[in-house]
Amino acid sequence: MINLLVLIILRGDPTAFQEYWMSTKMKERCVVVIPGWELMSYFSYKTNVCWFLQQDLAEAIKALHCEIGNAATEERYIVVGNGSSQLCQAALFALSSLSEDKPLSIVAAVPYYSTYEEEASYVQSQLYKWEGDARTFNKPGPYIEMVTSPNNPDGTIREPVVNRGGKVIYDFAYYWPHYTPITHRQDHDIMLFTFSKIAGHAGSRIGWALVKDIEVAKKMVQYLTINSIGVSKESQIRATVILNELTKSCRIKSESFFEYGNEKVKSRWESLRWVVDKTGDTFTLPDYPLAFCNFFGKSSSTYPAFAWLGCNEDKDLESLLKEKYVLTRGGERCGSDKKYVRVNMLGPNKDFEDFLNRLLTIKYPNCFEGIPCFEP
Amino acid sequence: MINLLVLIILRGDPTAFQEYWMSTKMKERCVVVIPGWELMSYFSYKTNVCWFLQQDLAEAIKALHCEIGNAATEERYIVVGNGSSQLCQAALFALSSLSEDKPLSIVAAVPYYSTYEEEASYVQSQLYKWEGDARTFNKPGPYIEMVTSPNNPDGTIREPVVNRGGKVIYDFAYYWPHYTPITHRQDHDIMLFTFSKIAGHAGSRIGWALVKDIEVAKKMVQYLTINSIGVSKESQIRATVILNELTKSCRIKSESFFEYGNEKVKSRWESLRWVVDKTGDTFTLPDYPLAFCNFFGKSSSTYPAFAWLGCNEDKDLESLLKEKYVLTRGGERCGSDKKYVRVNMLGPNKDFEDFLNRLLTIKYPNCFEGIPCFEP
Repeated sequence: MINLLVLIILRGDPTAFQEYWMSTKMKERCVVVIPGWELMSYFSYKTNVCWFLQQDLAEAIKALHCEIGNAATEERYIVVGNGSSQLCQAALFALSSLSEDKPLSIVAAVPYYSTYEEEASYVQSQLYKWEGDARTFNKPGPYIEMVTSPNNPDGTIREPVVNRGGKVIYDFAYYWPHYTPITHRQDHDIMLFTFSKIAGHAGSRIGWALVKDIEVAKKMVQYLTINSIGVSKESQIRATVILNELTKSCRIKSESFFEYGNEKVKSRWESLRWVVDKTGDTFTLPDYPLAFCNFFGKSSSTYPAFAWLGCNEDKDLESLLKEKYVLTRGGERCGSDKKYVRVNMLGPNKDFEDFLNRLLTIKYPNCFEGIPCFEP
Repeated sequence: MINLLVLIILRGDPTAFQEYWMSTKMKERCVVVIPGWELMSYFSYKTNVCWFLQQDLAEAIKALHCEIGNAATEERYIVVGNGSSQLCQAALFALSSLSEDKPLSIVAAVPYYSTYEEEASYVQSQLYKWEGDARTFNKPGPYIEMVTSPNNPDGTIREPVVNRGGKVIYDFAYYWPHYTPITHRQDHDIMLFTFSKIAGHAGSRIGWALVKDIEVAKKMVQYLTINSIGVSKESQIRATVILNELTKSCRIKSESFFEYGNEKVKSRWESLRWVVDKTGDTFTLPDYPLAFCNFFGKSSSTYPAFAWLGCNEDKDLESLLKEKYVLTRGGERCGSDKKYVRVNMLGPNKDFEDFLNRLLTIKYPNCFEGIPCFEP
């Protein structure tokens, strides 16, 4: 038989929400028009701590957090970055530069976002050092713990685990109501957010940090100044328009992006759980507790942007899926076991459906692509 | 007397060309329109070495270099970055990662672009180490030399000075015909260019590298992937439109951006030289030789984007100008003497004229702002 399988990459591109922006209602909105003579300067607001942050974007960020109730923005500096990856590195630079002990240890509880390890290691900085799993970390002295909640890759709600007075960088990329119940307003010293995972605009490379301490904010801005002399103005303008639209959309249920997004992710999770169930005890998925979401005003579960898929036998699941032409991120890269993979739940519809079918073929080899074993 | 001086910042913002883009002819062109559902993916071209580079931008870059004749693009990989600063760091990472000896020494001939020192030092990488002036560098073993031509800050045409078989990163930010005669097509292993200094769009944070060796290109892309997961798509789209317009404009002399830009920078240099001349032997400026420009088809001098202003007495010129509320970059930051400063020649018209007047008041204190001592 000729192999007709097309490669499916389920590694993290969040394009599932594009259909919302292409809908009849939204298509005409959020169009950004930039004349040739605009946005030419390096500067946005020369006297601001974050001198390259467009003020309209700062306002849009504050308005959205206020509407959703997921994070405190009062008495904080907003630092904009080329995605939250760059901001994470800016925060590592800031905290370690301001620390007397160097290199500062960087830890995160397993399974962790694999990119943290790369970010903390690739330039071999003498300011900080990747020390791996926070749960087994027992080096004395100051440290930085990365806390991602809901967690990437496994969607769990996280708190710091070391708790010895170190610094904590909170990554709230997924603390938005379509993914998880908004149980309270987060209120920490350094909180990272990314435009990519809210409504799916990853190509814009916009992230922001809410930072309490001015010295930390200044050092982060110093990093961003040397690293890239700030952040694209075009992306900032576009993020402003889209974030403002998201805020507005919350007020009309039928138009609300977060209602739409929640339905979308929830329905994918239901499909995935159906398939996993059909395969008997072949695969595993985490269970998530119900919690009251202040934003939706009702109890709900977590529907993470990634599925932390495991297999019950001691197999290399990444390789197993690769044989089916499905690319995922292996659990070992997240400090965990190769029997787990991280699967992007925000890919295009067709890719997601094909993935479900191929998952079924692992258990039922006679069920192949083209014959819809899985009917959504 | 009340101090009526308004602060003038002449540190590097290239907004002088904005009037070109606001002219009646250009105002309607180069407008970029982006719908809400476009440019959502991280990816531009998944199978390309630089997977986040928009193909249209790659074509626009090649077309412009071909029209100007300033750099070879054949058999090279184009790597796009968040400005050429990030690309410079990507190149340091690539070359040092691929080198057996670490840390790799980084040098540049004095006076050098002060940011190189910061870029090579701030994260305290164990991959490379800033070693300062290339002319006095005598450490054995491999090294990287930064060669900027025309040079920032002093506008001189540069070649490598160490010449012991090390790697060279060529920064050609200013090798464009409005600044300097295009005497030949540059053809080196790693060449950096920036959108900021061509037509003045610094806010877009777009730079590119032309790279011969695929392994170096791949490592640079690895840096950009970990550092910021690529580059703003919105900025890439806008840079594409504007670079294409620059290429087209070359074919009609009355519309040519480079004719306009050359006139603009040349006229500022003539004004500055007039003022320096009027102040007798107070200040110094470099002289630049004439050379035949292949692009304009005639002999021309260099009109750098920065003036390397000196004072004949042993004074701290940065402080002297600061007393006049003019902010420049002091020579010591460029590895040189405090009697020099780097003055941005691409600021707004009013700032430049006010700067000339204030320069005159250092020699002639009775000549103060409001009374136009300098008439352009």
